[in-house]
Amino acid sequence: MNPERLKRKIFNDPIYGFITVPDELIFELINHPWFQRLRRIKQLGLTNLVYPGALHTRFHHALGAMHLMTEVIEVLKMKGHKITDDEARGATIAILLHDIGHGPFSHALEHSIVEGVSHEAISALFMDRLNKEMGGKLDLAILIFRNKYKKKFLHQLVSSQLDVDRLDYLKRDSFFTGVSEGIVSSDRIIKMMNVVDDELVVELKGIYSVEKFIIARRLMYWQVYLHKAVLSAENLLVNILRRARELALNQKQDLFCTPALKVFLYHRYTEKSFKKDPNLLSSFAQLDDHDIMASVKVWTGHTDPILSMLCKNLVDRNLYAVELQKKPFDIKRINKLKQQAKALYKLPEKDLSYLVFSNDVSNDTYRPDQLQIKILAKDGSVVDISEASDQLGVDLISNTVRKYFLCYPKALR
Amino acid sequence: MNPERLKRKIFNDPIYGFITVPDELIFELINHPWFQRLRRIKQLGLTNLVYPGALHTRFHHALGAMHLMTEVIEVLKMKGHKITDDEARGATIAILLHDIGHGPFSHALEHSIVEGVSHEAISALFMDRLNKEMGGKLDLAILIFRNKYKKKFLHQLVSSQLDVDRLDYLKRDSFFTGVSEGIVSSDRIIKMMNVVDDELVVELKGIYSVEKFIIARRLMYWQVYLHKAVLSAENLLVNILRRARELALNQKQDLFCTPALKVFLYHRYTEKSFKKDPNLLSSFAQLDDHDIMASVKVWTGHTDPILSMLCKNLVDRNLYAVELQKKPFDIKRINKLKQQAKALYKLPEKDLSYLVFSNDVSNDTYRPDQLQIKILAKDGSVVDISEASDQLGVDLISNTVRKYFLCYPKALR
Amino acid sequence: MNPERLKRKIFNDPIYGFITVPDELIFELINHPWFQRLRRIKQLGLTNLVYPGALHTRFHHALGAMHLMTEVIEVLKMKGHKITDDEARGATIAILLHDIGHGPFSHALEHSIVEGVSHEAISALFMDRLNKEMGGKLDLAILIFRNKYKKKFLHQLVSSQLDVDRLDYLKRDSFFTGVSEGIVSSDRIIKMMNVVDDELVVELKGIYSVEKFIIARRLMYWQVYLHKAVLSAENLLVNILRRARELALNQKQDLFCTPALKVFLYHRYTEKSFKKDPNLLSSFAQLDDHDIMASVKVWTGHTDPILSMLCKNLVDRNLYAVELQKKPFDIKRINKLKQQAKALYKLPEKDLSYLVFSNDVSNDTYRPDQLQIKILAKDGSVVDISEASDQLGVDLISNTVRKYFLCYPKALR
Amino acid sequence: MNPERLKRKIFNDPIYGFITVPDELIFELINHPWFQRLRRIKQLGLTNLVYPGALHTRFHHALGAMHLMTEVIEVLKMKGHKITDDEARGATIAILLHDIGHGPFSHALEHSIVEGVSHEAISALFMDRLNKEMGGKLDLAILIFRNKYKKKFLHQLVSSQLDVDRLDYLKRDSFFTGVSEGIVSSDRIIKMMNVVDDELVVELKGIYSVEKFIIARRLMYWQVYLHKAVLSAENLLVNILRRARELALNQKQDLFCTPALKVFLYHRYTEKSFKKDPNLLSSFAQLDDHDIMASVKVWTGHTDPILSMLCKNLVDRNLYAVELQKKPFDIKRINKLKQQAKALYKLPEKDLSYLVFSNDVSNDTYRPDQLQIKILAKDGSVVDISEASDQLGVDLISNTVRKYFLCYPKALR
Repeated sequence: MNPERLKRKIFNDPIYGFITVPDELIFELINHPWFQRLRRIKQLGLTNLVYPGALHTRFHHALGAMHLMTEVIEVLKMKGHKITDDEARGATIAILLHDIGHGPFSHALEHSIVEGVSHEAISALFMDRLNKEMGGKLDLAILIFRNKYKKKFLHQLVSSQLDVDRLDYLKRDSFFTGVSEGIVSSDRIIKMMNVVDDELVVELKGIYSVEKFIIARRLMYWQVYLHKAVLSAENLLVNILRRARELALNQKQDLFCTPALKVFLYHRYTEKSFKKDPNLLSSFAQLDDHDIMASVKVWTGHTDPILSMLCKNLVDRNLYAVELQKKPFDIKRINKLKQQAKALYKLPEKDLSYLVFSNDVSNDTYRPDQLQIKILAKDGSVVDISEASDQLGVDLISNTVRKYFLCYPKALR
Repeated sequence: MNPERLKRKIFNDPIYGFITVPDELIFELINHPWFQRLRRIKQLGLTNLVYPGALHTRFHHALGAMHLMTEVIEVLKMKGHKITDDEARGATIAILLHDIGHGPFSHALEHSIVEGVSHEAISALFMDRLNKEMGGKLDLAILIFRNKYKKKFLHQLVSSQLDVDRLDYLKRDSFFTGVSEGIVSSDRIIKMMNVVDDELVVELKGIYSVEKFIIARRLMYWQVYLHKAVLSAENLLVNILRRARELALNQKQDLFCTPALKVFLYHRYTEKSFKKDPNLLSSFAQLDDHDIMASVKVWTGHTDPILSMLCKNLVDRNLYAVELQKKPFDIKRINKLKQQAKALYKLPEKDLSYLVFSNDVSNDTYRPDQLQIKILAKDGSVVDISEASDQLGVDLISNTVRKYFLCYPKALR
Repeated sequence: MNPERLKRKIFNDPIYGFITVPDELIFELINHPWFQRLRRIKQLGLTNLVYPGALHTRFHHALGAMHLMTEVIEVLKMKGHKITDDEARGATIAILLHDIGHGPFSHALEHSIVEGVSHEAISALFMDRLNKEMGGKLDLAILIFRNKYKKKFLHQLVSSQLDVDRLDYLKRDSFFTGVSEGIVSSDRIIKMMNVVDDELVVELKGIYSVEKFIIARRLMYWQVYLHKAVLSAENLLVNILRRARELALNQKQDLFCTPALKVFLYHRYTEKSFKKDPNLLSSFAQLDDHDIMASVKVWTGHTDPILSMLCKNLVDRNLYAVELQKKPFDIKRINKLKQQAKALYKLPEKDLSYLVFSNDVSNDTYRPDQLQIKILAKDGSVVDISEASDQLGVDLISNTVRKYFLCYPKALR
Repeated sequence: MNPERLKRKIFNDPIYGFITVPDELIFELINHPWFQRLRRIKQLGLTNLVYPGALHTRFHHALGAMHLMTEVIEVLKMKGHKITDDEARGATIAILLHDIGHGPFSHALEHSIVEGVSHEAISALFMDRLNKEMGGKLDLAILIFRNKYKKKFLHQLVSSQLDVDRLDYLKRDSFFTGVSEGIVSSDRIIKMMNVVDDELVVELKGIYSVEKFIIARRLMYWQVYLHKAVLSAENLLVNILRRARELALNQKQDLFCTPALKVFLYHRYTEKSFKKDPNLLSSFAQLDDHDIMASVKVWTGHTDPILSMLCKNLVDRNLYAVELQKKPFDIKRINKLKQQAKALYKLPEKDLSYLVFSNDVSNDTYRPDQLQIKILAKDGSVVDISEASDQLGVDLISNTVRKYFLCYPKALR
């Protein structure tokens, strides 16, 4: 008996039962403080205000995606494709770290205090730093992540329209929200995966599961990710952070903050700043959901009436009223609501947009112009899903739906 | 169509599918900031460091228990028992609010900064205040909660050895941890519930489910609630808070704190203090997981080497080594470990107990001396489960298992 | 305690947990030999040859649909709609008995030995006979079943494009086959059901679940109901019964048969025959899966080479090769295969169609020309799902897909 | 890409998702008519009369056990144990075929028309015949099955107190009945399996799952396998077959029978007969559930009043009343019931035992005197589960519970 083997770390997961860490190096990465930090960042931000079970973290999702990656690799090897141990490890690390750059309430932060700094850019920085720390052991993983490695299908497993990232998050978000619409047969899809001419394909037998996956993704968008109340909550947080920054930067007021949050609230940084000053990344690495929420809670008592009102509304879950429709909202209606808000809350004109605002959202759809989902027919030919499917016309599949929402205080309803 | 009815609030729940709020008053309670605060308090504290899915909150559990209560009441009414609408509402409110006094990381806090103040006492205070706010509408709920109401079986549904509290938390904890051992057939048990002579009983047909419930509870204790690494994490937090208080109170040092945490870190309060000063309860109502974790994160940079080391260990999930055994640990061994710790960490003797310590834990078992689980035989007779069961002797059922654990830094292993 | 109530019969169901029989009269119907007979008729015929778990019966499905009916009725009553106890019982009985006319391997039988006699016609006869037996107690149920009752929405619950029949069978077939594509959120759909102007509607909040339901139905068609190997098996049974009847009727040969099967194998009956001779229905009521399979097994040893070959093929699961395509198969190819079969099996020309044949199938889709699925918008307006849905154009929804299949012996492959 | 690999047969399974056939030879075995026959033999006989979902077959269970075997083998190999491809195939075939000797309604048949011929003996005969057919390719599988192979742990996986047979059937029976009490964490147990000194052990971390497994097994016995109504149904079938044989053998009456059933109804065979006459095994291989049920249905019209009454009772699910108790029933009570039956049904004394009878049953428990379940402690020592467990004393574990049941016509109740 090899005692080394016995030490394999196992995580409990209500979805897959167990997740086995395949490798010592990967275990080391999981234990790194930068990765552990993902334990404190919820995958779906404020969605738990609508679906109370949606508290799962980016940590858990990354482990889940890693698990699916090891499964795909096993399936492909069984089908006769050569994947070396190094390549397997590289692809697995690439998916494990694909989201490591996410900050807390990523969407809200990117629209407020770290505007212009994408989580993708931060992920890249984290990976490079980790690679340096580990003496270049992540070289291959990074090549795969950036699609610079010769075997392109490995990158497609990490990032394409049918990657293990999407397979895990649809399944996981569906599980924890309780929205069974999003259930995806990841098992079946994975068993049907194959590679032809260095391209990831799904065997014809799996076509219905792929169709279901595309539909599930669309439905999850409207039922969960872009749910009205979720939009309302997220925009409330955006406004809170915008207001806090206004007070901090322009009005030079002193706000209670955790030190890590202070760094970003009181300065405007760009991607360049991160590249210049390595300490910035270290500061970012200290931010998580607790910094935001602990500060918001304290701000409920702030003297600025706008900040304190918005914060109370978030903490007590008193969200904006929201309307969602297919056409832009009439500007007159918006202005009328603003005037009502002005009267009711005694606010200056320029601050009314904290209370009444409109914007648009659109779902992420299958994009036939991008890396397509390919189906492997019995005769060995490979066609795009939109051609292979009887059910889904390319129109349906590729049709992005844009909707407009309007938020305003419930008191104006 | 009654438009009133349409407004019934529904919560999504991955366990029961949907949870319907049965009542306007109850909906009002759920929306109260004191109840909403439970959204920010995890049911299982730090257990997610071991079972990453265990992030569910006391809010979600309280809703789940409320749901089961409405189901039991329906079953009992269908079996011909008279339960008025007021009684139904009262029992439902009693279970909804049964845990409202829990603070963040309850167990750890009760062993450190709010020592001597039980969450039961705080729950009682919250209920009284809510009742006053609502003009006495909670009178009956409070009578039931305190077992002062004439129909005793209603209290038994709220608190006994087979109450809806336990039914929900075993099921929920089992679901979110992924430990299928704890799955409990709450459906079956509830369908078999009945009342005889004002006492809650389970019909004989449900005996196997009750046996399973008792076994599941025991197994969940050792597999989850008293899991070694969970003990390790909880005791790490206890030590962090003990150390922070030592610095705050005795050494008069200034520690970063959210205002709500500061109140409790810098003073010693008793249950009496809460009764005297109503503001104290309001402060307590502002505490949640974020206050603790945001502060702990900042303390990782504190100048006190003990505090910063302990905090780093928690944040980076570098837990104590733990051993668990049936006998107390040899005092010599403990002392030896302490001396090793002293040498390694250069600490004064009196602070070694932050690093090396031993204590005991025991599972919560079926207590035949307390409110028993009663089985209703076909002939109408009622007997205790320990008599009715072929499987479980009273010995097994009532046998509390005590275990001793020893924690020390992994570096000493 | 009302002892009457205690006697409520409960069925265990792996899908809903428990199914409670709501009523004494309904319990009596379930116990009737004609209903018990459905225990011996598989819901999905020979599908278990492809999905080994698909052994569930029409009995179980009828109970499940009954369960959903009691749930919908409860929801509608809670929303303020008046449904009397008699109406509730009537609708429940109507759904319970909706499929009582199914014989074993219904599809195969209706294409062979009971050609021209639909299971709907038989269901109607059974209901009338039961009603007579029970002194008219089923009057209202029959009115509802035939859409002759004034409250039309009750019929819509029994039979429309979103009835409890479909809700249960998609869920049940999906569960027992293990094809998670078909999972339908019956819970959510039912909670969102409502009635406007005597018409069943789904509230807007439930629209995604309805979309999912429509998609699930389509996918289940191709993945399960019209799966190639299922088509192959069913057509094999059709050919066996056609051959057996040819031997029995035209060649006057003596075939081993259970008495009930003999009645139908050795005569040609029409719906009229059933109406004329009440004994015929009693004979039909004795037919179930066992009659067919026990006889087929014996026929594996019959002297007719075609019959014995076909029967051996079914019993040993040596199915036809099948091809499925969107265009009709080339008649030349079919003829060529027939000639090959002729050469290999030494059969006369006229019998080649037992071995080589082509036909078409099409899925059951949403039919906008029939009873539509109506969505209730927030403003109280009611629109068809195909208008309300962003996701599903009416084209997609209503587009029946027809496919052609070709079967031939595997030896010719 | 190795096209060979692509041909791997996959079965859909609602429990494990997919079951992959690991091997060409194994696929051949699964396709053998003797194995396909298990598709027509329900795993739990008449249990579906109580749990309507319990229609799963011995075919499905055998595939499931095969699946678990491939998983265990993978786990053990990963832990550094050497298992050759031949050994893996051998163990897998051994478990696949372990129940191939089961006839329809095994328990009932072994107590009536094939009395004295155990299914184990028949399994052995089938395996030998298959081995001969396949030119000795099953040699190693048979050695493992008979515990004659040097690596004993392979046999323990096939047959011991914690074998994959039990792991699958508890899980499967639990799934299809809907009795969640029997759910077993096979995943967890398998991940914790190991081998020490050629003995199968479970690592200490898995102890709670093993405890749960032992409890689940006990509960499944009383809740499902020995459920009162199941006992009633099985004994009804025993009596039907006893009566049919009495008429056939002693009274020389002609009964409708399928040919395969006729062979066994009209003769008394022993294990020796099977060994002498190879045709007997071929006849047995033609028997399945359909032969029994099709014949029983015809016998409902037989002139013998006892046979026809018993058969009607089974077909219409009009089961005996049953009582279950811990002590033998009073002989006086039994006799009194017999006299009542005599008066009511006008039967001769000697035939009363078809209607009124008593017997005992006992659950299968953990047997410390047999192959024990071994736990591997952290220090490398190996102890029996009954010693390692805090929860389960050896008393509880090994305590066989015997119960007595009494059956009589419901009319006498």
